[in-house]
Amino acid sequence: MPKDMTMTTEPTDIFTRRESEARSYCRGIPALFTSASGSIMRDAEGREHIDFLAGCSSLNYGHNDPDMKAALVQHLMDDGIAHGLDLHTDAKARFLEAFERHILAPRGMDHRVMFTGPTGANAVEAAMKMARKATGRTNIIAFTNGFHGVTLGALAATGNGYHRGGAGMDVQGVTRLPYDGYATGVDSAALLEQMLGDASGGIDAPAAIMLETVQGEGGLNAASAEFVQRVAAIAKVHGALLIIDDIQAGCGRTGRFFSFEEMGVMPDLVPLAKSISGFGLPMAAVLVRPKHDVFGPAEHNGTFRGNTHAFVTAHVAVEKFWADDAFQTELAEKAALIERRLTELAALVPGAYLKGRGLMRGVDVGSGGLAGAICARAFENGLIIETSGNEDHVVKVLAPLTTPVALFEQGFDILLDAARDVLATTKIAAE
Amino acid sequence: MPKDMTMTTEPTDIFTRRESEARSYCRGIPALFTSASGSIMRDAEGREHIDFLAGCSSLNYGHNDPDMKAALVQHLMDDGIAHGLDLHTDAKARFLEAFERHILAPRGMDHRVMFTGPTGANAVEAAMKMARKATGRTNIIAFTNGFHGVTLGALAATGNGYHRGGAGMDVQGVTRLPYDGYATGVDSAALLEQMLGDASGGIDAPAAIMLETVQGEGGLNAASAEFVQRVAAIAKVHGALLIIDDIQAGCGRTGRFFSFEEMGVMPDLVPLAKSISGFGLPMAAVLVRPKHDVFGPAEHNGTFRGNTHAFVTAHVAVEKFWADDAFQTELAEKAALIERRLTELAALVPGAYLKGRGLMRGVDVGSGGLAGAICARAFENGLIIETSGNEDHVVKVLAPLTTPVALFEQGFDILLDAARDVLATTKIAAE
Amino acid sequence: MPKDMTMTTEPTDIFTRRESEARSYCRGIPALFTSASGSIMRDAEGREHIDFLAGCSSLNYGHNDPDMKAALVQHLMDDGIAHGLDLHTDAKARFLEAFERHILAPRGMDHRVMFTGPTGANAVEAAMKMARKATGRTNIIAFTNGFHGVTLGALAATGNGYHRGGAGMDVQGVTRLPYDGYATGVDSAALLEQMLGDASGGIDAPAAIMLETVQGEGGLNAASAEFVQRVAAIAKVHGALLIIDDIQAGCGRTGRFFSFEEMGVMPDLVPLAKSISGFGLPMAAVLVRPKHDVFGPAEHNGTFRGNTHAFVTAHVAVEKFWADDAFQTELAEKAALIERRLTELAALVPGAYLKGRGLMRGVDVGSGGLAGAICARAFENGLIIETSGNEDHVVKVLAPLTTPVALFEQGFDILLDAARDVLATTKIAAE
Amino acid sequence: MPKDMTMTTEPTDIFTRRESEARSYCRGIPALFTSASGSIMRDAEGREHIDFLAGCSSLNYGHNDPDMKAALVQHLMDDGIAHGLDLHTDAKARFLEAFERHILAPRGMDHRVMFTGPTGANAVEAAMKMARKATGRTNIIAFTNGFHGVTLGALAATGNGYHRGGAGMDVQGVTRLPYDGYATGVDSAALLEQMLGDASGGIDAPAAIMLETVQGEGGLNAASAEFVQRVAAIAKVHGALLIIDDIQAGCGRTGRFFSFEEMGVMPDLVPLAKSISGFGLPMAAVLVRPKHDVFGPAEHNGTFRGNTHAFVTAHVAVEKFWADDAFQTELAEKAALIERRLTELAALVPGAYLKGRGLMRGVDVGSGGLAGAICARAFENGLIIETSGNEDHVVKVLAPLTTPVALFEQGFDILLDAARDVLATTKIAAE
Repeated sequence: MPKDMTMTTEPTDIFTRRESEARSYCRGIPALFTSASGSIMRDAEGREHIDFLAGCSSLNYGHNDPDMKAALVQHLMDDGIAHGLDLHTDAKARFLEAFERHILAPRGMDHRVMFTGPTGANAVEAAMKMARKATGRTNIIAFTNGFHGVTLGALAATGNGYHRGGAGMDVQGVTRLPYDGYATGVDSAALLEQMLGDASGGIDAPAAIMLETVQGEGGLNAASAEFVQRVAAIAKVHGALLIIDDIQAGCGRTGRFFSFEEMGVMPDLVPLAKSISGFGLPMAAVLVRPKHDVFGPAEHNGTFRGNTHAFVTAHVAVEKFWADDAFQTELAEKAALIERRLTELAALVPGAYLKGRGLMRGVDVGSGGLAGAICARAFENGLIIETSGNEDHVVKVLAPLTTPVALFEQGFDILLDAARDVLATTKIAAE
Repeated sequence: MPKDMTMTTEPTDIFTRRESEARSYCRGIPALFTSASGSIMRDAEGREHIDFLAGCSSLNYGHNDPDMKAALVQHLMDDGIAHGLDLHTDAKARFLEAFERHILAPRGMDHRVMFTGPTGANAVEAAMKMARKATGRTNIIAFTNGFHGVTLGALAATGNGYHRGGAGMDVQGVTRLPYDGYATGVDSAALLEQMLGDASGGIDAPAAIMLETVQGEGGLNAASAEFVQRVAAIAKVHGALLIIDDIQAGCGRTGRFFSFEEMGVMPDLVPLAKSISGFGLPMAAVLVRPKHDVFGPAEHNGTFRGNTHAFVTAHVAVEKFWADDAFQTELAEKAALIERRLTELAALVPGAYLKGRGLMRGVDVGSGGLAGAICARAFENGLIIETSGNEDHVVKVLAPLTTPVALFEQGFDILLDAARDVLATTKIAAE
Repeated sequence: MPKDMTMTTEPTDIFTRRESEARSYCRGIPALFTSASGSIMRDAEGREHIDFLAGCSSLNYGHNDPDMKAALVQHLMDDGIAHGLDLHTDAKARFLEAFERHILAPRGMDHRVMFTGPTGANAVEAAMKMARKATGRTNIIAFTNGFHGVTLGALAATGNGYHRGGAGMDVQGVTRLPYDGYATGVDSAALLEQMLGDASGGIDAPAAIMLETVQGEGGLNAASAEFVQRVAAIAKVHGALLIIDDIQAGCGRTGRFFSFEEMGVMPDLVPLAKSISGFGLPMAAVLVRPKHDVFGPAEHNGTFRGNTHAFVTAHVAVEKFWADDAFQTELAEKAALIERRLTELAALVPGAYLKGRGLMRGVDVGSGGLAGAICARAFENGLIIETSGNEDHVVKVLAPLTTPVALFEQGFDILLDAARDVLATTKIAAE
Repeated sequence: MPKDMTMTTEPTDIFTRRESEARSYCRGIPALFTSASGSIMRDAEGREHIDFLAGCSSLNYGHNDPDMKAALVQHLMDDGIAHGLDLHTDAKARFLEAFERHILAPRGMDHRVMFTGPTGANAVEAAMKMARKATGRTNIIAFTNGFHGVTLGALAATGNGYHRGGAGMDVQGVTRLPYDGYATGVDSAALLEQMLGDASGGIDAPAAIMLETVQGEGGLNAASAEFVQRVAAIAKVHGALLIIDDIQAGCGRTGRFFSFEEMGVMPDLVPLAKSISGFGLPMAAVLVRPKHDVFGPAEHNGTFRGNTHAFVTAHVAVEKFWADDAFQTELAEKAALIERRLTELAALVPGAYLKGRGLMRGVDVGSGGLAGAICARAFENGLIIETSGNEDHVVKVLAPLTTPVALFEQGFDILLDAARDVLATTKIAAE
């Protein structure tokens, strides 16, 4: 039996002493968290924090959803499978059935589900490999400010130079082009089309074009439906697969289950992770159209491809939130609330403007310094919120989609007060 | 509220219809599993199977260990954090404290723990990137029959051509050399030393030399302590880091917590995964000496770096099994049992011989066909067991380390009967 | 003693039988050439051809210039060195002295001369390697429609997909961006600046930016001075070297010795080849500023780095053509003649327009079919001329710079007649 | 008209001032060479040097062979083509005819000739690209101590770390394995066979296996016929092409035209350069079997693919030396002379031993310091000779094959005296 688990030293000591310098969020959000429910996190000092970060969109249904929790506890009590490699389990069957019935079938998607190692990066790697194997080509076109993970294959597609620098070597196999609206006066889809169509354009025939419809890490840049449609058409003309990385923007974040639902495109490959388990448990998948489902058995393998606990909660998530339209209707209302309050925030800062789409919104306040200061002040007052963008200059709201209206308003009050405080201080300092 | 979860179709239909062709174990082990405890898995037809696969060494402490289960249920009931990015949590602190006290400190290891995305491949990617960044070099030396994962960076180090082929592109940054005992008459360490020391040897100065001390997927090839020591010395002379990938061989599998404990070497980087959570939950880490802990904050990041549920069970695993020598003593006895019974198996097949080390053992029966037939027959009789090796010619025993002696004997009885049956049938067929 | 060299079969048989399918110009220009002088080539049937191709700008001073010929014959008769590796020879000293006095010093260039293997591709490879070694970076930015050679390093910078396809593997180390004027509405320098300056622009910090000021193979696209200046400034800001590949546009082709002379930029590295020997002999060099002259002895080596015969003729070329302004004045007049006559050509074809700069001009006639037909017809009538561009849609004039005015007019008469013939035939066919 | 070419400064000043630091041979052989004939080079001070370097085997027929010279002068006087791109010329036809009649046909070779850019590196690049395109594979197996050139593709196959370091980036596409006799106790062909045949050997299916039969730069390591045969057989089994790089060892250097003639193998691809022109002029070619001649027109191109002057002299070389067996017989005698005299040299130095084959021989004297000192002393006494090997520890004799016996003896006398002097001095210093 494990002994009593009393910690003999200050808990943060152990992190400094034994956790790698690579740790990050804990630096800007310096509390020791002990429990959480819904949109509230509690720390060891008994303080409550409103969570507008939601595990970077991994907790779209909030912390410890009671129905998922109940199902998982029951699974544990029944000695349900905890680890089953990629064996058939009842939990996996239930998840797949629900996912087919409530997600895939109603949207006319014939995609199969490939469970990859339970990280978004792994799903992206699998999608990139699959596209390359299916087409016999190497090159994958990705976009400025895209973020797709930091393992070597996915990292090549990630725009951020700090992350790419971590590779310690040249990354391969990706061509970078400007995202929708990236450069003033540049029609990004037209440039892509011209360079691909040009015999001396210098871009190898692509296996895939990969994009996020809203760039979560890249600054909440939202592509227009027209851009996504044109990219889809260009991909088709050039024999490339269309990969829509819906890891952060999927699972309801933009107001629909998939971020591309109302855009009139049907991606060939869709990496999913973050909120797919519903409960914040590690889980990832690639949706793939049957004709591109080209891996042989275990050709892309991994020990944790089937996180059975995640299947249990994911099943509940699908049944509870996506069996009818109720949740989607609720999301539209909350998206409007977010837009209204962020418009207020933008009005406080000269030159600031709204970014993003649905419930994946933010305000570009013009500098990383200001955005960071606002978030830091908000944290002091009980709100967990983070920045985004190539210069961390966007205050980003990624609250649980289930956040009650009153709590949303309360969180925004803290945020706006924080912005006012910081701006006042800055103004005084400037005078 | 989720509705009743009755499945309306035969459960296996859904897998065929909606799961990717990449699925693998479920093909050779065609049951629908519903629950498990200790070394026993149960299927939907109520059948019990002895598990000699243990999630490929991810379930070293068996299924649903009651203490870990109790701790996890309690954590859930308390609304403990399920997903906390890499924030400080009480669960992480408890795990780190226990890991320091019972694992690192007693072994004189000053290593820090970097929690990576919760897959072995991600830990390997992080270790490779870290070695490259720390040394400013690209090349990593890996060995024939090594297996390190299938994301693009790790895949370069993986010897298996089927897996490498899945990349659909050339992989980069790794030089392959023969493993200990690979080729008759070749002193692999001497060849490595000569090629590295030669100004025209054609091998770029290495960032790291990476190896498994026992190649789990590669056929249970066990390196000698002398080989590992010589490789460690060569790495040091050439300014390369030593990475020991202990994902499969670690966490007690060879009889000690680490597979290299008694070899007199101190690796710079140690990727861990599989059994580190104790419960089969996704979790991975890289142990890194402070001087090589060179990533900046979030330079290698990922959403699921801290699987809090896994910290809860991992903490229990460390306290329960590694706080004193009892478990280790037990392992030595079981290793002897395994050796005794596998020697019996080897005696049945002309030319067959034992492979591996500790509780990571197998028998090379000379052909993939024979090994596969034995495992298939064993499965029919209630034993889950798999093959390994470049031609799947090794019958591999990776039972939970906690398997009771009687159950071990029962499993081996099934295995030996299966071998006798298959051999008899083969003999009859040949006559 | 060699025997009589009478050929016993039709000479073209031997090419079909024993020369590789990679041969190319001989397919579109099907004669057996035996001698040449000035701008005239003679074939085995005694026919004379006006040469508007000039060895793709390798014969800027025409065929068999009498002074160069005399010097080379004298060198041979004196048993002058034919092959001297990179040893000091009198011939090399004379060339370097003249090149310093008449080319480098008057233009304020402190560059050193690195003699590489005598091909343009080798000079480009050396320049790319040098930039990478000098900066410690890998990435080199090249442009749409650029052509820099077909060895693996240079090929990565070459836009043409047909050539890149010849590699049979992925090429590495180059980022492609749109050239000046490439895409309607796109300010190519601004896009380059934005993507490089953006922390998530996804372009690795460049070792160099490499461009031709006029893209000879890419369709005679001429960059504006402003574009080149902005690129030079961007390179400086980002710590990248500026490589101006003057292999085709240098040695007087644009009206000055270097194509960048009047643009107010000073490149760090300048690959030269083609006309540098003056006589069409293989010779190549990289001009490099002393601070970037970072190779150690023989670090970039090769057997034919010093083609002594080429030094002999190159020395004469520099002394004869570049010791004063006379030749340059003559070039301005001929450039005007070319522009006048090509304007006539463009007027014949609806939508056609002039391209290029100086004596490196052509007409975009809108399709490769039409351009090819015009060149084929011109060949029948005694003019050797070729197409250029990603679709071979540009009729390109690369006559020897020394072509007398009357011969220029004669050549253009043939060209215009050919165009009229082809257009008439096409018109008739269309009716 | 060029002015008088009197040099106004000390000639060596100009090299220091304006030639790149990459220059190399001129550093160890510090004379200003002005003329040469046969095996004698003359410097500006009127001194004569016996040449045992022969342009690194580029002057196998000596300097300024009178018949080649006469033919080239006549060609010049007739205004023969100097530069003709890859157009058909009479000079090329004559060379191809003679090469077919005297070289290819008698040896049963159906190979075609691909003229590449006139450097050995370019021929190697073309061969590597062709093998990759023909097989659809990337990987090329090369060997320790191999040298194949320094452009990016060829450099990957070059073992020397100093040269590879010049790339400033990671090179790709080559797997390195030990050459024949490289490591004590290692059967290199067997190791190659095992690793290639092993599903987890970690070596990608090769497009080609490329080797020199004698490693000229790598220390005069000579492969046995048996090794080359086994490699040829392994290549065939694995669908890989066999590339024998005969740039340094071909054209008579080992006693036959090709170095592999008596080995019972027929390579698919043979890069040639150095002595192929006969006169030291830049020229290179790849011999390729018709079925692998897969490049389309100009797919591998280059301006100087047809060095017409080189065709003129190469034609004479083939007719003069290879039309009958006389030269070959002479070579056997000279090879014996070289072996006899180098045996004497080896006897002077404890532990020294002969290396190489045919007229490509040397003595491993155990250290680069000693080998360098012997060569330096020899140079003072009138003999040009160089070192070779990964540590420059081999004194290498690469004299013109046409060196008269008496001059050979004289050169060896100087060499042996130099060795005695150096050893005596060293001994005195040691005492």
